[in-house]
Amino acid sequence: MFQNSHSRLVAIFDGVFAVVLTLMVLDIDVPERITWATMSATGWKVLLYMISFGVVAQYWIYHQELFHAIKEPTIQLLVYNFIYLGFICLTPFATSFLSDHPREQAGALMFAGVIFLVDAAQFILFRLVIRAGGGRAQLTPHDQEEYRGAATMLIISGVYIMVGLILPQWLLLVIVLGLFGRTVQTHLWRRWAARHG
Amino acid sequence: MFQNSHSRLVAIFDGVFAVVLTLMVLDIDVPERITWATMSATGWKVLLYMISFGVVAQYWIYHQELFHAIKEPTIQLLVYNFIYLGFICLTPFATSFLSDHPREQAGALMFAGVIFLVDAAQFILFRLVIRAGGGRAQLTPHDQEEYRGAATMLIISGVYIMVGLILPQWLLLVIVLGLFGRTVQTHLWRRWAARHG
Amino acid sequence: MFQNSHSRLVAIFDGVFAVVLTLMVLDIDVPERITWATMSATGWKVLLYMISFGVVAQYWIYHQELFHAIKEPTIQLLVYNFIYLGFICLTPFATSFLSDHPREQAGALMFAGVIFLVDAAQFILFRLVIRAGGGRAQLTPHDQEEYRGAATMLIISGVYIMVGLILPQWLLLVIVLGLFGRTVQTHLWRRWAARHG
Amino acid sequence: MFQNSHSRLVAIFDGVFAVVLTLMVLDIDVPERITWATMSATGWKVLLYMISFGVVAQYWIYHQELFHAIKEPTIQLLVYNFIYLGFICLTPFATSFLSDHPREQAGALMFAGVIFLVDAAQFILFRLVIRAGGGRAQLTPHDQEEYRGAATMLIISGVYIMVGLILPQWLLLVIVLGLFGRTVQTHLWRRWAARHG
Repeated sequence: MFQNSHSRLVAIFDGVFAVVLTLMVLDIDVPERITWATMSATGWKVLLYMISFGVVAQYWIYHQELFHAIKEPTIQLLVYNFIYLGFICLTPFATSFLSDHPREQAGALMFAGVIFLVDAAQFILFRLVIRAGGGRAQLTPHDQEEYRGAATMLIISGVYIMVGLILPQWLLLVIVLGLFGRTVQTHLWRRWAARHG
Repeated sequence: MFQNSHSRLVAIFDGVFAVVLTLMVLDIDVPERITWATMSATGWKVLLYMISFGVVAQYWIYHQELFHAIKEPTIQLLVYNFIYLGFICLTPFATSFLSDHPREQAGALMFAGVIFLVDAAQFILFRLVIRAGGGRAQLTPHDQEEYRGAATMLIISGVYIMVGLILPQWLLLVIVLGLFGRTVQTHLWRRWAARHG
Repeated sequence: MFQNSHSRLVAIFDGVFAVVLTLMVLDIDVPERITWATMSATGWKVLLYMISFGVVAQYWIYHQELFHAIKEPTIQLLVYNFIYLGFICLTPFATSFLSDHPREQAGALMFAGVIFLVDAAQFILFRLVIRAGGGRAQLTPHDQEEYRGAATMLIISGVYIMVGLILPQWLLLVIVLGLFGRTVQTHLWRRWAARHG
Repeated sequence: MFQNSHSRLVAIFDGVFAVVLTLMVLDIDVPERITWATMSATGWKVLLYMISFGVVAQYWIYHQELFHAIKEPTIQLLVYNFIYLGFICLTPFATSFLSDHPREQAGALMFAGVIFLVDAAQFILFRLVIRAGGGRAQLTPHDQEEYRGAATMLIISGVYIMVGLILPQWLLLVIVLGLFGRTVQTHLWRRWAARHG
């Protein structure tokens, strides 16, 4: 009579992602007076919003690929998913924190730390789903790529924490490069795969 | 021509749960100055957020299991569901209240009271769905477990209210222990059930 | 290639309703100091929230019944739906307004006015859907009841405006009585219909 | 094992649109004192909210028509969609900005600029979807109309930027006329098409 529902798990995830993506924009305040100083502060917030939006969108793209493989969610998977989701929900706060303290170590570490938690939870989710699907032997080349992607993201987020510790003011640039680099890399890989079958 | 729709009832529920889960994070303010005092206050709010997130996520897991059993929602079920949903929507407020008044009886009682209302509404929903499905005789062992879970939650939330009255400052610890205890208990039960069929 | 999608129209509606239902709770501020005065002010806001929640939930129940009848939304129906949705989105603001100015005519009129707009848009939607479905001759007794319900709500919201003009401080009581009265009436009607076929 | 999901892409889009449509209303503050001055300021904000609501609703209508044509989203389409979505999420901020600086060039340019970005991203999406569907030769007359609509919107948003530069205080009127004009034009076109097959 009572069963876990795949479609509803997906629905609440997409709902939370949608709210998270949109809430981050609430952090951009309208300046009271329009001067170069206030407008450049606003521009900085818009830029930071766009980076966070890109980061969360990337997580969503991975998550929907990952969940395509799950037919019947177990209670264990539900619990790990909510832990992952709880960390995702912290990204607007982490973005806000970095936005208010862009040059301080604490802001950079808070942002990098939340990204690390999300990446770690994402990596564990990948491992759980792959194990439930019959182990790594069942993965297609594309699946392997995604799994490696999740592992790479976890390693990179460790780099973010180190950057946050040593050169906090460069964190955002490193994140943007990482995000852009991944997109370019994926693009090239897909083009290569499309040509060579 | 005009009929109640199961898929839409589920859609609005998941939507409301998604917004509730995400709104609670808005309560974590970014401190203006970074000191040990402000950072520990922020850490406290993050912790409280995570506990509330876990509580609401647990309600959602129960709700989606419960609603799997409903094929055609009656108007009565719709109305009771919205009453339940109205109490769920109060959790961000109750979390906020407890967050601002963590050591006062009023904060603990407000939080425990909202949880009690949700648990009571959840228990009534379970009874309605079970009655509509042909009574307790139709329940599988797993269904029975879920129903007992809903009853246990209602009793425990009565305990929360008493803790809030007598030892308000211990309420959160009791809630975390309850949440963690339930997860461990469910985990053990599932492992046992998987082994013994 | 490009076509209107019924499932997506429903998805955005449920999404907006979910956010509206949840946003209204943001209006309940946590008092800084806990005294009888601040707590009774908070209690008043919680009460008002619950009434608004009931009002919006009632609209949603009507809307999902209404849309069950639509198979292929026309562009005209899309536009009227968004007009209706735009008024629904104003309810958190109207609730907020009444909450801050509970004894003033302006607050009562703002609230009653928004409800009137929603009810008028809802009535027009009913007429459009019924016309698209072949006219009133095609309505089952249950459909007729829903249509009369939408018409009654429009008339009652006219009464709300008059109450707001003459006795603004009684508006909420009148709304609660109306909401409760409708639920009881529907309940009795369904019981009667179930018994007499 | 891991694949992109059309239904989830649609779900997150509708979720984000739903939140954006609803968040804009948060910008309407309740005046502390009710006077003609504060009420006319509130009325102005309600009007601006309605215009923005209409603008975003129009984007949503186009988007759901466009996505009806996509069966399997590619990663490229996903990325472009999120860029489009990121600009859509900026509309509440742009509305807020214009609301606070209605007579200044900066407010008008910010609003017109965001609309231009959305229109440009929408136009690129149309081109991508049409190319994936086999090129312009595959378009039905209705598809052609939608495609021309997207192109017209991009051109008009260029006009908005010029209006924002030269006559910022007239921008909203121009937008309303454009919105209303498009609705009337579409209405007439559909009526004409319905009559002439």
